[in-house]
Amino acid sequence: MINLSILGSTGSIGTQALDIAEMFDDKINITAISGNQNIDLLEKQIKKFKPKLCAVMDKEKSKILKNRISSDTKILSGLEGLTEVASNEYTDTVLTAVSGIVGLVPTVSAIESNKRIALANKETLVAGGSLITKLAKDNNIDILPVDSEHSAIFQCLQGNDYKTINKIILTASGGPFLYKDKDFLKEAEVEDALNHPNWSMGKKITIDSATLMNKGLEMIEAYWLFNVDYENIEVVVHPESIIHSAVEFVDKSIIAQMGLPDMRLPIQYALFYPNRMKNNLKSLDFFEINQLNFIKPNTKIFRCLELAYDAIKIGGSMPSVLNVANEIAVDKFLKNEISFLDISTLIEEVMNQHRSYEIRDIEGILNAKKWTEGKIKEIHL
Amino acid sequence: MINLSILGSTGSIGTQALDIAEMFDDKINITAISGNQNIDLLEKQIKKFKPKLCAVMDKEKSKILKNRISSDTKILSGLEGLTEVASNEYTDTVLTAVSGIVGLVPTVSAIESNKRIALANKETLVAGGSLITKLAKDNNIDILPVDSEHSAIFQCLQGNDYKTINKIILTASGGPFLYKDKDFLKEAEVEDALNHPNWSMGKKITIDSATLMNKGLEMIEAYWLFNVDYENIEVVVHPESIIHSAVEFVDKSIIAQMGLPDMRLPIQYALFYPNRMKNNLKSLDFFEINQLNFIKPNTKIFRCLELAYDAIKIGGSMPSVLNVANEIAVDKFLKNEISFLDISTLIEEVMNQHRSYEIRDIEGILNAKKWTEGKIKEIHL
Repeated sequence: MINLSILGSTGSIGTQALDIAEMFDDKINITAISGNQNIDLLEKQIKKFKPKLCAVMDKEKSKILKNRISSDTKILSGLEGLTEVASNEYTDTVLTAVSGIVGLVPTVSAIESNKRIALANKETLVAGGSLITKLAKDNNIDILPVDSEHSAIFQCLQGNDYKTINKIILTASGGPFLYKDKDFLKEAEVEDALNHPNWSMGKKITIDSATLMNKGLEMIEAYWLFNVDYENIEVVVHPESIIHSAVEFVDKSIIAQMGLPDMRLPIQYALFYPNRMKNNLKSLDFFEINQLNFIKPNTKIFRCLELAYDAIKIGGSMPSVLNVANEIAVDKFLKNEISFLDISTLIEEVMNQHRSYEIRDIEGILNAKKWTEGKIKEIHL
Repeated sequence: MINLSILGSTGSIGTQALDIAEMFDDKINITAISGNQNIDLLEKQIKKFKPKLCAVMDKEKSKILKNRISSDTKILSGLEGLTEVASNEYTDTVLTAVSGIVGLVPTVSAIESNKRIALANKETLVAGGSLITKLAKDNNIDILPVDSEHSAIFQCLQGNDYKTINKIILTASGGPFLYKDKDFLKEAEVEDALNHPNWSMGKKITIDSATLMNKGLEMIEAYWLFNVDYENIEVVVHPESIIHSAVEFVDKSIIAQMGLPDMRLPIQYALFYPNRMKNNLKSLDFFEINQLNFIKPNTKIFRCLELAYDAIKIGGSMPSVLNVANEIAVDKFLKNEISFLDISTLIEEVMNQHRSYEIRDIEGILNAKKWTEGKIKEIHL
């Protein structure tokens, strides 16, 4: 039995993980859940899965939820509550499916409490890659990737020595703006950017998909997860999202993972790893897909991908700055405060003004966050 | 050091295996080679690789070669010589790269002598699958596939439990006649059929590619190698030959092996398995391939594929009959004695007249061969 805690159970990954838990209700026990403020959904999830703990980030909302719940589920709040969800005694596996850098502290806490980590929060590795991977190694903890691309790479690597990796081929759908030019992007509206062709995901990651920053963050995540130099991680735009990523080995053999775009597969793979469990997901029909295409990403238009390569090349605190600046910029775009192309301009401006320093502890990451938040207020586009 | 014996060193696979041996001359020692009658090439190979043994199927030619050789290499002849090449004391790994059912007896002899088998002779498994796999199991011998498709499947299965296979996706280039209709095929000439778009191979296998019998034989080979029911082996025509085959697991995840069409990769993988060795083969460039296509095979026109499914469904001696009838029919086509479409007609006619019996020993396979050879003489198209 897997005793599973879900950080971010009301989000896209969280709800799909609960679908998996329902599908395998004799093998997965939900011990704890958490959400930002959607207490209506949390209430339903509590009734259905009867977790020991539920944390709500928003303190006021947590009080309301507490009054509504008559069961034994303990209602917690804030980052403290989230950390308790990540590290409590009932749990052996933590799925970190919150969006953004808020996932960092609970993930560290989960590793320190010897929980197995199913990681869907890429910002944690982007900002704290060196710390997190070292901590996991020291505690002998598996970090199992949940992102479809990293799950694909991880599956391709099974039975192979990581030292024989020649290159990682990280595929990108290209997002809703794949074939658009600069003139279109200047005027791009929020709803256009949220209209992803293949994947139904949260708002933040969907905008990241449109800017290609998502692929940049994934490149940095892959760098940390698989110990492969960024120069050997190649981004290939593959609009059909059928090949979820691939690995080329030193003998020039490429192993690729394919399937219909359905996040439940990588979630399930991470939870049951190393076992593959029979499920009722739909099979890929080769005769239906008909044709697969591969295109070079246009980093002149989609600057964010190049900025991510710059950030990991510089290293230290720079990826944290990239990540936080991106979170703020995306938020501003979603609020119609800046234009679509301003996202990369803003990030680049912040990066230009940052002097990277070595990350020695969580404090170092949080300082980079604070610095970025302050700096961005000074910048007027 | 791998002490390698090559059955069929003058053929397409054999010469490419020697390329690999040259590339890794500090890791591969050629102990024995054999050829049908190309003694000029055998002479060159002896000078270069200094094997202990060399067998020539043609007895007269072996005498000529013996007179030409001044080195310590012992020259043998006939099936006896071939068997000695497969089972001698200097050898630990045998690459069976002869074409046709002639590979059967030496392969059995190699397994009984506890040699590791790199199998490029699919006819051996088609005709003797049950015997060979049992013998290998009893002797605790690895049979490592060299066919690009089976090597692909084998690579995809690394780190996975064979019991979690849902389906094997066996890709086919479609051969030179992929888009041709029946009217064209009626008149198809030998040189048209030998003009394969992607792979440079021997004559027999190239014709088998044109009829799709090659894929039928590979389906039967996969059935024996990976213990997967024929109903769960799906043939997908993929004209670019970039995905060399794939496996769908019970969780609906598909792992595929990809690369440029180059037989040296699967040969090398089989020889060094489970290690991947760095080589100087060309990398697949995703931006060059541009597009991949997948098409359902047309078994109404390409009857041979369906006949192979029929043969394995019936089982017993029927796959042996299919295989021998095909060898004879292809030979007749190459000699312009029958037309291209007559190949499948002839095989079907022989199969219709055969009453399948259980294969208990090599004798049973050889009897099926004799029966087929006799029966084919009676059939006038």
